Amino acid sequence: MHLTQGLHRAVQQNPDLPATIDGDRVRCWVESADRVARLAAGLRAHGVRPGDRVALLALNGDLYHEVLLAVPWADAVLVPVNTRWSVPEIAFSLRDCDAAVLVVDDAFAAIVPALREQTPDLRVVLHSGEPAQRPDGAVDVEGVIAGHQPVEDARRGGDALAGIFYTGGTTGHPKGVMLSHDNVMSNILGAAAAGVMWDPGSRLLHVAPMFHLAALTGWAIGVTVGGTHVFLPGFTPGGVAAAIERHHVEGMLLVPTMIQMLVDSPDAAGADLSSLRRLLYGASPISDAVLARAAERLPGVGFTQAYGMSELSPIATLLSPTDHLDPVRRRSGGRAAPHCEVRIVDEQDRELPRGGVGQIVARGDNVMLGYWNRPEETAEALRGGWMHTGDGGYMDDHGYVYVVDRIKDMIVTGGENVYSVEVENALATHPAVASCAVIGVPDAGWGERVHAVVVLAGDVPAPDAEELREHVKNRIAGYKAPRTVEFVDALPLSGAGKVLKRELRKEHWSGAARGVS
Amino acid sequence: MHLTQGLHRAVQQNPDLPATIDGDRVRCWVESADRVARLAAGLRAHGVRPGDRVALLALNGDLYHEVLLAVPWADAVLVPVNTRWSVPEIAFSLRDCDAAVLVVDDAFAAIVPALREQTPDLRVVLHSGEPAQRPDGAVDVEGVIAGHQPVEDARRGGDALAGIFYTGGTTGHPKGVMLSHDNVMSNILGAAAAGVMWDPGSRLLHVAPMFHLAALTGWAIGVTVGGTHVFLPGFTPGGVAAAIERHHVEGMLLVPTMIQMLVDSPDAAGADLSSLRRLLYGASPISDAVLARAAERLPGVGFTQAYGMSELSPIATLLSPTDHLDPVRRRSGGRAAPHCEVRIVDEQDRELPRGGVGQIVARGDNVMLGYWNRPEETAEALRGGWMHTGDGGYMDDHGYVYVVDRIKDMIVTGGENVYSVEVENALATHPAVASCAVIGVPDAGWGERVHAVVVLAGDVPAPDAEELREHVKNRIAGYKAPRTVEFVDALPLSGAGKVLKRELRKEHWSGAARGVS
Repeated sequence: MHLTQGLHRAVQQNPDLPATIDGDRVRCWVESADRVARLAAGLRAHGVRPGDRVALLALNGDLYHEVLLAVPWADAVLVPVNTRWSVPEIAFSLRDCDAAVLVVDDAFAAIVPALREQTPDLRVVLHSGEPAQRPDGAVDVEGVIAGHQPVEDARRGGDALAGIFYTGGTTGHPKGVMLSHDNVMSNILGAAAAGVMWDPGSRLLHVAPMFHLAALTGWAIGVTVGGTHVFLPGFTPGGVAAAIERHHVEGMLLVPTMIQMLVDSPDAAGADLSSLRRLLYGASPISDAVLARAAERLPGVGFTQAYGMSELSPIATLLSPTDHLDPVRRRSGGRAAPHCEVRIVDEQDRELPRGGVGQIVARGDNVMLGYWNRPEETAEALRGGWMHTGDGGYMDDHGYVYVVDRIKDMIVTGGENVYSVEVENALATHPAVASCAVIGVPDAGWGERVHAVVVLAGDVPAPDAEELREHVKNRIAGYKAPRTVEFVDALPLSGAGKVLKRELRKEHWSGAARGVS
Repeated sequence: MHLTQGLHRAVQQNPDLPATIDGDRVRCWVESADRVARLAAGLRAHGVRPGDRVALLALNGDLYHEVLLAVPWADAVLVPVNTRWSVPEIAFSLRDCDAAVLVVDDAFAAIVPALREQTPDLRVVLHSGEPAQRPDGAVDVEGVIAGHQPVEDARRGGDALAGIFYTGGTTGHPKGVMLSHDNVMSNILGAAAAGVMWDPGSRLLHVAPMFHLAALTGWAIGVTVGGTHVFLPGFTPGGVAAAIERHHVEGMLLVPTMIQMLVDSPDAAGADLSSLRRLLYGASPISDAVLARAAERLPGVGFTQAYGMSELSPIATLLSPTDHLDPVRRRSGGRAAPHCEVRIVDEQDRELPRGGVGQIVARGDNVMLGYWNRPEETAEALRGGWMHTGDGGYMDDHGYVYVVDRIKDMIVTGGENVYSVEVENALATHPAVASCAVIGVPDAGWGERVHAVVVLAGDVPAPDAEELREHVKNRIAGYKAPRTVEFVDALPLSGAGKVLKRELRKEHWSGAARGVS
């Protein structure tokens, strides 16, 4: 299998159908494929050899679509770059994988000089956008496309390296996750086979940043089963609502925070969202309160949650629209997708009985080739043939996987284990809590103590810490209730919409906390 | 990927759900998996080594289900045997692949002595059924299952040989098509990803003979995406209707002839078929008349046609329920499935422009490893990396593939090429024609002449040959109209429900034709 096979199929089956819609610019599949084949020719002409890494640093747009297809077409390896990273972080990843080419759009043209300085081996920078914005020495993408005749697709595939995806780096330096064509394609076909992803032929809106593998996979499933791709460079509730209405969007992938903003924002309130049929989300379960409001605002929509990680290409489990009707099951990450096996194991990698909390591990053709240039970490992560996710969880009698915490995020307080997600879920049921995160902080008496960081909803009377503690104690064991509560305006989020607990801990420990009570 | 992964997933997700229903016998997934693991242990105990071929000669039933899973579980290779074949044909295939074990049910117990005589290297015969029927020296399957502790799944997969499927043998000796686990699984996931196969969790009825790869794939997709499997040992319209009503069947695979019988037979007229949601069919397009009657009898059903062959594991193209609403497109075999590329090529393997008639070729992970012990025929079939189907066809501007004929079935009459399917489609629109086949027969004046073999519907006045000729001439070019017409009671059909044109030609040439006019 190879990443470009969906493009060939689309050209054969829907040559005149819109492939990409980016603002007012619409390109059909024949035109899109022609540009891909010319861009691939241009990459080769600029010295890209088979297996060379081509990095892409851009906001969502038709450029992203074309580069994602042109790079494998040219027999090169994709490196989508995290757009939220600082220059040193980006430069680290480009040096780490020895990128030959960097493609940027206007949003990132300004940092190219600084990046080049820290990435001396970068050979070529391609720029798409206004000539006035073009970095010194960068080559115009449109000129490359216009200036080269289409080449044949290299049709690299199977076990060959398709892309390197740098993980969020919640621990130390980011690691490059190597995924083969078969890794990515088995994930795409397996997830699609579950019957809860896009309906073939759908109009899809891509607004979550596509450098993240979840969003990229949403796009890739659409290319594989067929559809039209609408791109937005960034998320605003009003912008998303307007795009749905204008383009009759039927499917999109968001993170729960975005869903919450879309259904709650007055900017999105007037728009006709009735075309929407499917909403995929990942990164974390959705709170019952948000789900209820979303179901009211989007009555015809089936919600699907995907759980996984880059190392799993990235989907391990899926929570179907039907599963969302069950108040218990919708707190889980769903069940193993058809392409992937999932287990819960103890510290000796023995499978635990149902209900036992341990590490979530996964096996299947979607498991990464390994970490780029990190054989020891690869061997450790893939020991025994299973990908060790580092997530703690348990499985119920029907295979639903409940992610309780990162193994290392578990709080040990007074000798008891507390999983922060459980506390967060209890806190989130309070009507005044808009969002929250629970962490362990050093405590002389308890070793660690349970500490909550809370964003309050603006439209209800603000509770104090004691009221929230009581609220939690009425729902779960008393020792799990937060001993301290901190009120903040917003939680720090990763590019994928995950709460950056590392940031919370750092901030708290540096004494910068506001309003701890 | 490996064939048993769906079984592991089902045990994890639906342990207590019915896995198999065979008459009054219901087994849940835990029990089914336990029997599979014990049967696999028994196979090993009877000397089955990794890669050994285990043949299965049985009617549809829960035995079929368990053997299909136990053989890969034991690291052996499946050989499903054509139940319609004669003893010499079966013995040929068992000798050809050097089968170590043969599993039979009561329906085939009686021919075991004759088979053993012609298959001296067969080591073990397992028999499932009445002790009184057991062939001499055969081992009781239930005893094997009861007498062995479950073994671990060998989890053979990937490129390893999963099964050998003997093709119908429309030309010469049957050939053993070697399919790997990845071949079969890429086909399953790809077809399921198209969104037109079974809905996950469906109750499926298996009545088309499962030795045929189309029916076996229908079962395997169900195992992979999840569902309950109801088995019927043979097709009768009344039996199928009763099973649908009794078990609330939601999906099944039939050949068009079976669909026609189901909707037309008085035996099926009273049954409640309202649970049915999806009907897959293959082997040939469905006539408009039958489709109209089927849509009336089964108003809630989506029809999907699959086109392919054993060498493609077997699906190349799919015609979706929506496609069936289009009177032109529903005459096609549909469009390339997500896992497979399809082209039309000329005799030098160059792709033809859209509309040009040539050979249908396909490429993808679903293409067979090759023919067992036939390297030359393998190389010929797979030349240039594409599977050459031997079918003639053309592709329209939206990728729909119209199968016009086997390349070798094309009729050359007076220097003109005539594709029999086109003539058959024209004939079938006559209200008195129940079914028909068109062949070329030797003709002194024309080289070949177009000859039609017709089964008349009983309930309308019978036309004569001249009326049918005029009917065809009003629809397609005059030279394509049959010069001779033969009326018969029934057409000879293969196990897959395809008309055996070879038989028709032989019968005609031997002077056995009745009523030629």
